[in-house]
Amino acid sequence: MAVDLHNYVASIPDYPEKGVVFRDLSPLMADGQAYKQATDQIVQFARDKGVEMIVGPEARGFIVGCPVAYDLGVGFAPARKKGKLPRETVKAEYALEYGTSELHMHKDAVKPGQKVLITDDLLATGGTIKATIDLVESLGGIVVGCAFLIELDALNGRDKLEGYDVLSLMHY
Amino acid sequence: MAVDLHNYVASIPDYPEKGVVFRDLSPLMADGQAYKQATDQIVQFARDKGVEMIVGPEARGFIVGCPVAYDLGVGFAPARKKGKLPRETVKAEYALEYGTSELHMHKDAVKPGQKVLITDDLLATGGTIKATIDLVESLGGIVVGCAFLIELDALNGRDKLEGYDVLSLMHY
Repeated sequence: MAVDLHNYVASIPDYPEKGVVFRDLSPLMADGQAYKQATDQIVQFARDKGVEMIVGPEARGFIVGCPVAYDLGVGFAPARKKGKLPRETVKAEYALEYGTSELHMHKDAVKPGQKVLITDDLLATGGTIKATIDLVESLGGIVVGCAFLIELDALNGRDKLEGYDVLSLMHY
Repeated sequence: MAVDLHNYVASIPDYPEKGVVFRDLSPLMADGQAYKQATDQIVQFARDKGVEMIVGPEARGFIVGCPVAYDLGVGFAPARKKGKLPRETVKAEYALEYGTSELHMHKDAVKPGQKVLITDDLLATGGTIKATIDLVESLGGIVVGCAFLIELDALNGRDKLEGYDVLSLMHY
């Protein structure tokens, strides 16, 4: 029987700063049934898109995407912060509240024409995911979808993903 | 037909410093067949141990452990650097070449008596893994095994893991 995934979200008021409610998905990931159910929903979303590669930004995007890759029988490529990947990379910048940050991928992580699903735990403002899309596309990959466990509707991250097929298992 | 996983390791001379050969497992993770084969070998190692939870240190330990958790139908709990987990944590320190670093886990990440498999991409000096074992045991978990894609034999990390059941898919 299916569980209600909302029961596996820890909501933490005033974290990381006053007025923000942080949605912590570690209880979902720590529960075998909830983790499997969430993964299977993303696999179902991915299956008829011919996905050939999963890409996720570090580090919670790995926890969401890796079992999806395994179940589909495809590979997983990480998008990582500066200085974490040992070979030649491409990079994309994205805005933070103050200043910018950057994400990197290995130049051979995605092959031209490869169909890519991007995964992360949470869609907030969409900055990280848009940077990840930019990286995949700069390598010639085709982003066939983006999948999240949670979408924070009030932050309008989906506006940055216009034209892409987006799945969010829960909305807050 | 099985592939030779060694063909999916990128060996990078003089990285991150002169005289060190870095073993990069991203080609293995990016190849659907190699990633599945490696995962299945770890699942086979885990299956008769009654594993109830996978724990991996950030971030490559997530890529190794998460599909194992999914296939076994159990949960995954991350061991993370300071400041990355939003709720109350336990911490363990480990030595770096200069100074120390620390890993954290949520206090409720592992339940007392739970059988835990620890995963990481690479066993080097064993400092990170020993810290992860300390965290799991401080929460009352029982470490029934540690699984790695690669073990660097010359660094004697296995000495720190005496008494634990260790699987390494490749040796260098």
